[in-house]
Amino acid sequence: MIKVSIIGSGNVAQHLISTFQNLENSSNEIELFQAFARKKESLIHLLPENKIVTNYNALGEADLYIIAVSDDAIATVSDALPFKNRLVVHTSGSMPFSILNNNNRKGVFYPLQTFTKGKAVDFTGIPICLESENGTDYKVLEKVVRAISNKVFAINSEQRKALHVAAVFVNNFTNHLFAVGNEICTENKIPFDILKPLMEETFRKLETLSPKEAQTGPAIRNDQKTIAAHEAFLKDKKQLNLYKTLTQSIQDNGKKL
Amino acid sequence: MIKVSIIGSGNVAQHLISTFQNLENSSNEIELFQAFARKKESLIHLLPENKIVTNYNALGEADLYIIAVSDDAIATVSDALPFKNRLVVHTSGSMPFSILNNNNRKGVFYPLQTFTKGKAVDFTGIPICLESENGTDYKVLEKVVRAISNKVFAINSEQRKALHVAAVFVNNFTNHLFAVGNEICTENKIPFDILKPLMEETFRKLETLSPKEAQTGPAIRNDQKTIAAHEAFLKDKKQLNLYKTLTQSIQDNGKKL
Repeated sequence: MIKVSIIGSGNVAQHLISTFQNLENSSNEIELFQAFARKKESLIHLLPENKIVTNYNALGEADLYIIAVSDDAIATVSDALPFKNRLVVHTSGSMPFSILNNNNRKGVFYPLQTFTKGKAVDFTGIPICLESENGTDYKVLEKVVRAISNKVFAINSEQRKALHVAAVFVNNFTNHLFAVGNEICTENKIPFDILKPLMEETFRKLETLSPKEAQTGPAIRNDQKTIAAHEAFLKDKKQLNLYKTLTQSIQDNGKKL
Repeated sequence: MIKVSIIGSGNVAQHLISTFQNLENSSNEIELFQAFARKKESLIHLLPENKIVTNYNALGEADLYIIAVSDDAIATVSDALPFKNRLVVHTSGSMPFSILNNNNRKGVFYPLQTFTKGKAVDFTGIPICLESENGTDYKVLEKVVRAISNKVFAINSEQRKALHVAAVFVNNFTNHLFAVGNEICTENKIPFDILKPLMEETFRKLETLSPKEAQTGPAIRNDQKTIAAHEAFLKDKKQLNLYKTLTQSIQDNGKKL
């Protein structure tokens, strides 16, 4: 039995806690041992009260401690742990494991997904990126992760940094383009829902094509007439600036600048 | 029985032809009457030879002619039609119906989707935007469209222009961000597939949230430390320029500039 303790009460922590807690009914190999939160109330809806600790000294001996807190708090939390030589990992995409205190064995457990408060998450299809200082710890991490996800990847700190930037492009920035699309629809009294099948197909196409092969539209066709008409249509400076920058970028694609 | 003839042999034309052709087996109300292509061979795999015409004078009397050709060719094709006072529509998102020749009654039949050559299309969920000069023609158009799609929208030329620009943002530009994500992965020996669940969830979130509510990431949090780390990481000028522009745009969102 591998004992896992989770430290944190935010979005990612709560999704992990409820996933590991639900796992107990089906798995004899992994146990959610304890969860740490500053206030018991923030976790009481997720697991039995006796598993929640609010004092670092009350953390018992587990095989794996997952620190799931904001990037800024990771170092402080790891410094506060009152034990030595145990396996401690964080869940951040942008922090190297060297940010963790040297008292313990370090690793990373980075779930590559965007979590929405209150929306249930099925970890099965979520890629989890793992890194550890040594092979034995990696095996423990891998065993824990395989109990909740079928997508496990060994990703080192440099790759994780790249992945985090790439995730900003495909998630944060894409979502912002959806927001601009929504804005243009609202301004012209068009229901945003009309665009959703197109948005879904944009993603679906990548089942068979690379994004570069899937590129369509006036920019890649160098259709100056349509581009000029679109630019004339856009009165909002922010929208126009995005339009120009992205059109240029599509036309430059493949060239290293 | 409503007779529909389709003019064109490109991507959209072929998808429409095969959809209407397959419909005949199930519908007694709509008939694919003829299809026009410059070369018979380009359509012969889609419908019986006797339905294909290669000369405008061979186009018989139909209730609806759908011109599905590139934007630049619409005017020329509509000028070449040797008949008068029939219902003729085009399928373009960016052209007003006034581009069609005055000899015939004008309209637009704009399927809001991205079509991939060789990939079958189910029109059922594809929004079709309709416009016509008069109400009687609109009813004919609507009846034809309802046979292939359950998403019919009355969209005027000004709205369609807006929709076409919005579609560029949510499809072309989004796809380009996917291409950049792919590029960053390749440069760092990370499989692009690792990002796909995140890309899918970016779209899924919008089932319950508006894109503005769904926005996450360093830009909206104004997390200057992470932004600086990402900017330092990006060595490619094109990637860096996109990163800066989109981050700024997210931070400006809601403000009219």
